[in-house]
Order: sequence, then structure tokens, then C-alpha cells
Amino acid sequence: MKKHNFNPGPAVLPLPVLQEASQAILDYNRTGLSILEISHRGSDFVAIIDEAISLTRELLGLSDDYHVLFTTGGASTQFFMLAQNLLNEGDSAAYADTGTWANKAIKEAKAYGSIKVMNSSKDKNYSFIPKDFSGIPAEAKFLHVTSNNTIYGTQIHQWPEVNIPIVCDMSSDIFSRPIPVEKFGLIYAGAQKNLGPAGVTMVLLRKDMVRTDLTHHMPPMLDYKTYIAENSLYNTPPVFPIYVCMLTLRWLKQLGGLKAMEVINQAKGKLLYDEIDANPFFKGTVAVEDRSLMNVCFVCDNETLENEFAIDAKNAGCINLKGHRSVGGFRASIYNALPIESVQVLVDTMKEFARKKG
Amino acid sequence: MKKHNFNPGPAVLPLPVLQEASQAILDYNRTGLSILEISHRGSDFVAIIDEAISLTRELLGLSDDYHVLFTTGGASTQFFMLAQNLLNEGDSAAYADTGTWANKAIKEAKAYGSIKVMNSSKDKNYSFIPKDFSGIPAEAKFLHVTSNNTIYGTQIHQWPEVNIPIVCDMSSDIFSRPIPVEKFGLIYAGAQKNLGPAGVTMVLLRKDMVRTDLTHHMPPMLDYKTYIAENSLYNTPPVFPIYVCMLTLRWLKQLGGLKAMEVINQAKGKLLYDEIDANPFFKGTVAVEDRSLMNVCFVCDNETLENEFAIDAKNAGCINLKGHRSVGGFRASIYNALPIESVQVLVDTMKEFARKKG
Repeated sequence: MKKHNFNPGPAVLPLPVLQEASQAILDYNRTGLSILEISHRGSDFVAIIDEAISLTRELLGLSDDYHVLFTTGGASTQFFMLAQNLLNEGDSAAYADTGTWANKAIKEAKAYGSIKVMNSSKDKNYSFIPKDFSGIPAEAKFLHVTSNNTIYGTQIHQWPEVNIPIVCDMSSDIFSRPIPVEKFGLIYAGAQKNLGPAGVTMVLLRKDMVRTDLTHHMPPMLDYKTYIAENSLYNTPPVFPIYVCMLTLRWLKQLGGLKAMEVINQAKGKLLYDEIDANPFFKGTVAVEDRSLMNVCFVCDNETLENEFAIDAKNAGCINLKGHRSVGGFRASIYNALPIESVQVLVDTMKEFARKKG
Repeated sequence: MKKHNFNPGPAVLPLPVLQEASQAILDYNRTGLSILEISHRGSDFVAIIDEAISLTRELLGLSDDYHVLFTTGGASTQFFMLAQNLLNEGDSAAYADTGTWANKAIKEAKAYGSIKVMNSSKDKNYSFIPKDFSGIPAEAKFLHVTSNNTIYGTQIHQWPEVNIPIVCDMSSDIFSRPIPVEKFGLIYAGAQKNLGPAGVTMVLLRKDMVRTDLTHHMPPMLDYKTYIAENSLYNTPPVFPIYVCMLTLRWLKQLGGLKAMEVINQAKGKLLYDEIDANPFFKGTVAVEDRSLMNVCFVCDNETLENEFAIDAKNAGCINLKGHRSVGGFRASIYNALPIESVQVLVDTMKEFARKKG
């Protein structure tokens, strides 16, 4: 039976990407070598990473004011690395507290500067996104936000109007829609949701954010300047994960780019949220205006119903729907590569559940 | 034409590993999901990482005194991470200076403690491995060595007799031969030579090396204790690179383990070094007793001959033989997965070159 993979990450990838990657493991581009065996300094891989960078620029509309870097260690490494690179001791930054990942970013940044935590929705179990940023301290170097909260199912749909650079953890919704690039000083994203497989992190860094006056020790592998100077090839990078990202970016371009992707994602979200709102057995968990188009969280009135529906969903081939323990119920992760047909199967299963129980 | 891939890294992988990995990209273990789409917290991946750890223990004969950890960022990240984890300010360590990578490790460790650099063969272009370790300072916490010098083609064949733990960069010869594990406090290795594809690093850490008294700041992603506590799953690990490592370790076990691998590697090395020594047109670049069984460096008497032979080798399907600029000439990297048949093709080409030119 066909599987409908609602995994929150690592997540579903486009089928043509998987097919091409599978072939490249045996023989990359008729070189007679596996993609796993080629040198990261050879012309084949340099062409791959350069294409990944140029597709990123094209899709997001990034000017030459931005560096496109590939690092490792996921967003979890960026939590401290960004603070270490952007803050000197005594510097300030503002962080919006919209969920688990924002909290981790805050905790790690505190070792490198004075962190003003603001706009917390913690007392409402992070079920909405506070939008008033008037409390940003005048001396803050940047505002850190999490564009999409994978665990709670909220998403920023209206970017903060602030006059300092936004630093954004975009791990779970990068490339899912156009963004006003000029607002951002730094964007980072673990690849394993919308961009590729686990094992590589994308960092988009505006040139004026790069600091040459840092007073603390910076090992080369933690210094953005190393990645800039070496085109992310200071040491051996994660060759295959970067290759699969490049294939996914090609797929996005062929599909029509981020505007086309946004239309598809809105259609998928509407299909599922409309059913949640119409179906008497399910309800959403977050403020309607902050609903995520990537991670759709919903619950039943009681656990018995949830257990019954979990069985029906599994029988329909819908897998990895279990909600995070912080929210309970269900979480359907419907990233870029999840086909609308899979959402339709889930919606049909919900409808049938209501018919059966009603 | 079949390619004989003498790449120094990322390097050749066993064909059955590539075939299985290629299939897993399309459908992992008949789950209906790609290996790139499965959750790192699901039972499928936990079984993979646990098997990788248990095969590592079995092949190396590691007792429960050692942790088997998977990190990212390559040996280049371990250069500072190991020092940050093993040294408090004021602590000392001894580092042997046997080449480029040893130098990078030394440079980065200096930010975290007092580093005694010893046993340098720099003035002889790193063409041998100094063996007298009597100058280790009494207070040194560990001795750092590089087991195999990829660039210069030297390898430790006789482990230092010292009474402090050895910390070893084993990136380019891990799993190529049995090792006296008990000598080592920490072993680290980027995967992309003998273990798997680029994008994951193995760290073997003896329990008594773990420090709970560090006074400097340790972000969780840089702290070995995080990897220990979370079985290397604190954040999303590089799923696919770890999977391919596991397949390579299975292949090693099927082949008979490290003793069998060592016999094969010695046969490959002998075949090539015997030809270098017998052939009037080629000569080795390092002390005979320190010759590497992983990276075989050799030169001709002049550049014209080298350019001619480079063409012959390429025509025979032998690729990526160019020596590092620090040594010149040729470097044949003959890691575990390179078949002896490929070495034979290279040797035959050398013989034919001598016949033609003789």
C-alpha cells in the first residue's frame, strides 16, 4: 500500500529527487563513480554546490549582498554559532519566544550576549504568535524569530515590522513561500524538512552582518568567515546531503518556484484545515490566523477517539501523524514534497471517521 | 571503461554497499519509505545506529569502557572539540607534529591549554615518523598523534609506548587493521575514507576521559556528554551517512574483520611498493619503515616523465592519482574498499611505462 508520510522531519522528499539520487549512488552523471566517491574539490562537486547556491539565490531572490553557506550540525549548532558570530560580550539581541526551538536558541545565545526575551506565548502553550514588537530594546543588534513552530503548529504569516535585521530559524518552512529577503540579516535552516535529507544546514548571511571585531576565540569551523572564504569547502562538506538539496532546488524551480509552491501549500493547508473546522470530531489547537501550513496540529475530544482515528489513519496508509507530546493528538506535517493526494487521503479518512461515529 | 578510483577522500566504497544504499534511497527495507525520509527517532533508524555502534565495538574489540559517538563537522571540528572537552585552562597536552593535519590539530588545541609540540619531522618534509616520545611533559593529559598522514604518505606502524592516554586522529586508516584499543583515550575519524561517505565523524571515547569539571562554556552540540547522554541523537543526526557507515561495517565483518582487512591491505601495499622499488622510473618519497598502506606517494625523476605517466594511468582508468602539492608526483590512495585488482592495473601500467621508456 502506498504510504502517505506525514513525518515532521526528516520528511518526505520529491519522488524524482529520490530516483535521481538513487541512480547517482551507483553512477553519478555517467562518470563511472558513485556520488559518494567523488572528491569535494573536483569539478563535479564544485558544479553541484555552485548550482545549489545559484538556485537558492534565484528562488529566494537573494542579491549578492547575501552569502549562501552550507554547514553541519543542524539548527541546534546554529543556536550558539549565530550568537558567537553576531555578538560580542555586552552586545544585546531580542528573541521572540514562540516555542521549543525558540527557547533552545535563547538559552544558547545567553552565553554570548545580553538577550531580551519577548513576545512569549508560553502561558497559552504557544498556541499563537504575539505580533507587537514595540518592546525591542534600542541597542538590540537583531531580532531572532522562528518562522514556523514545528511542534506547536504555528507560523509567522506577517513578518515583524522592525528596523533591525531579523535573524530567522527557517528550518521548517524555508522555500515553502516567497519571503521579503531584505528584512533578514541571517536565515538558517536544517535541510531535513523542505530542502533535503538530514546532515546539512543552510545559512544565508547578509554581508553587513559579518563581524571582524569579535573579541572571543573563534575556531575556524564555527566562524562564518571560514565558510565565506572557502565557499563552504574549508573541510570535506557533507557531499551527498548537499547534492540532494541541489536536486530538490531544481525540482522547486521546475515546479514554478516559490510562488507556485506557496499556492500548492495553501491549497493543501486549506483542504486539511477546512476539514478540521467542519468535522465535529476534530479541532485545531492554535489561533486560526497563526496556523502553520507546514505542521497541522489537531486533536479529538478524548483519547479514546484519538486512538480509534489513529488506527483508521494507519490503515489508510497515513503514517507518522502522532502529535508531539507537548500538544498531543495529531500533527500532519505537509511540507513542500508531500503531494496534495496524501492530504486528500487523510481528509477522506477523517470524513469517513465522522460518518462512522456520527 | 572501469574506473580505478585512487581518490584520497571522499573515497571508494564497497560495491555491495553502494548497491544496497541505492536501493534504500527508493525503499528502505520494504518500509515503503526512502532512507532519506525516515525519522531519526523511529525504530528503523535507532536499529541502524545501534547496529553501527555494535559492529564498531565488535570489529575493534571495544569494551564497555568506550563510548561510540557520531558527530558532524569532520576531523576539522574535532581538532578544537577534543581540546575543549579534554582540557581545562592551564592543562597540558603533547602533540606529535607529523604533517598538515597534525598541525591543524595543534593550532586549534592551543586555544584551550598548554600544548607541547614534539616529534616533528617538518624539516624533512614530514617524510618519516619520529618514534622517541621520551620528551613528553610529566603533566601532559594526553598524547595526540595522527595515525596516518594522508598528504605525506606516512603511517604509524608501531604505537607509542607511553603511560598517558593516546588521542588519535584515525581519519584515514580507521578499520584498516586491528589496533591496541587500550592505549587510546579518544579516537576520532571523519568517515569519508575507510568508513562511509562524507558527512559524519566517528568518536570513540574512553569513559575516564569524560570531564565533569570543565570551567569554560560548553554548548550542548560541542559537548561529548550530550552525545553520550542522547546516543548521538540530541538533534537530527546525518541519517544517511550513518546508514552507509553501518553497511560498510557489515561488509567489513563479512569479509572477516580487521585481521582479514589488514592482510588484504598489506598485500595491496606490497604489490605497489614492490613495483615502486623495482621500477627505475619511480621512487617512494618516505622512509620505508613508515610507508602508509593507505596513501602511497611516489614520484618520477622529472616532471616530463610524471606528465607522461599521468596520461598512461588515466588511459588505463586509474583516476585521482595526482599527488598533493606538498609532495608532488603521485599519490595512490588504496583504502579498504579499493580492490587489489585496481592496484594491479596501476602496477601493470607502471611496468608498461618502464618497458616503453626503457
